Amino acid sequence: MRISELVERSGIPRATVKYYLREGLLMPGNVTSATQAEYGEEHLERLALIGALTEVAGLGVKRAKAILDIMDAPTDNLMKSLGHALRELPPYGEPLPEYPRARRVLELLGQSFDPRYVAVAHLERALAGAEAAGVPLSDERLRAYGEATMRMAEYDIANMNATDPAGAVRYAVLGTAIYEPVIVALRRLAHQDASRRALGR
Amino acid sequence: MRISELVERSGIPRATVKYYLREGLLMPGNVTSATQAEYGEEHLERLALIGALTEVAGLGVKRAKAILDIMDAPTDNLMKSLGHALRELPPYGEPLPEYPRARRVLELLGQSFDPRYVAVAHLERALAGAEAAGVPLSDERLRAYGEATMRMAEYDIANMNATDPAGAVRYAVLGTAIYEPVIVALRRLAHQDASRRALGR
Repeated sequence: MRISELVERSGIPRATVKYYLREGLLMPGNVTSATQAEYGEEHLERLALIGALTEVAGLGVKRAKAILDIMDAPTDNLMKSLGHALRELPPYGEPLPEYPRARRVLELLGQSFDPRYVAVAHLERALAGAEAAGVPLSDERLRAYGEATMRMAEYDIANMNATDPAGAVRYAVLGTAIYEPVIVALRRLAHQDASRRALGR
Repeated sequence: MRISELVERSGIPRATVKYYLREGLLMPGNVTSATQAEYGEEHLERLALIGALTEVAGLGVKRAKAILDIMDAPTDNLMKSLGHALRELPPYGEPLPEYPRARRVLELLGQSFDPRYVAVAHLERALAGAEAAGVPLSDERLRAYGEATMRMAEYDIANMNATDPAGAVRYAVLGTAIYEPVIVALRRLAHQDASRRALGR
């Protein structure tokens, strides 16, 4: 298809499509003349993926490009590729010299972890923030949340196709960036249902 | 204590403390002379709470003030007060005219919900975003996530003191703003542990 059809079918403005081409987020089309190129279904899919990263996950173009580059050339170590991709997702922050709270919690939950993995710093910051706010998480609460999140993670991993590295990285990144808001909204709504039942209203 | 001690013990700069006083986030001290006022432990606690909302939850001063006002004067309907408070927490967005995806999912999960509750719009947006990204959530996945989030919510509600409305709103708001990042980080880390076990690495 011509770029005009790509614009129409994707719903993304021509100037934006050209910008993505120029910045390397969208792969070039098949050049057919000095001024024309042909685009295929893979370009439409790519535009949907770019839209997911920029509009749904709210990433800037530079971070979206970094994630796309990792998806395009995943390492043979899925967790390593995913770790690199997650650095481009919020929350952002400098690495920390130590992770005393996160380390203690992960040991409490009996979970293996790589201390270089960026989510360890996320957990450390979140736990420190709860302490600073005067609402530290009790071990009992951490166990309750840890069990529930492990159930979700086991579902996620069981449904991942690990034999396709590019697909697995795509699934892992999108499952993080796109499914987290669903999970947060579900918990907020579960509070409403659970409190109605508990308070009998 | 004098304002100088409040500044020292809270670690919050004097100009910021004065700004919070002026904007009504921090209640005034007990005036002892034309230029002096006495502050108590309640002022220190309040400063920790303001810090939690602005620094940990990342809210602007205006939104933090709106939440503090709700905590200071909760209605006798906890879920209503909480609903108002949650409007000040991210994600933000205009109300939607309809919630077809959220409605279907909540019916699938058998959960009661008030369609005016802002989290219904959050869920609708998150589900629509996943569709747009080409990774819609299957019913099986929604059930897995729904069960896990309900477990967390039931823990949260069971540990809430509903006989103290101000305390309950405080607990609910902080449990949303401050615990969500913990939950998100725990799931990311659970992926690492679960994939190690699944892939045998």
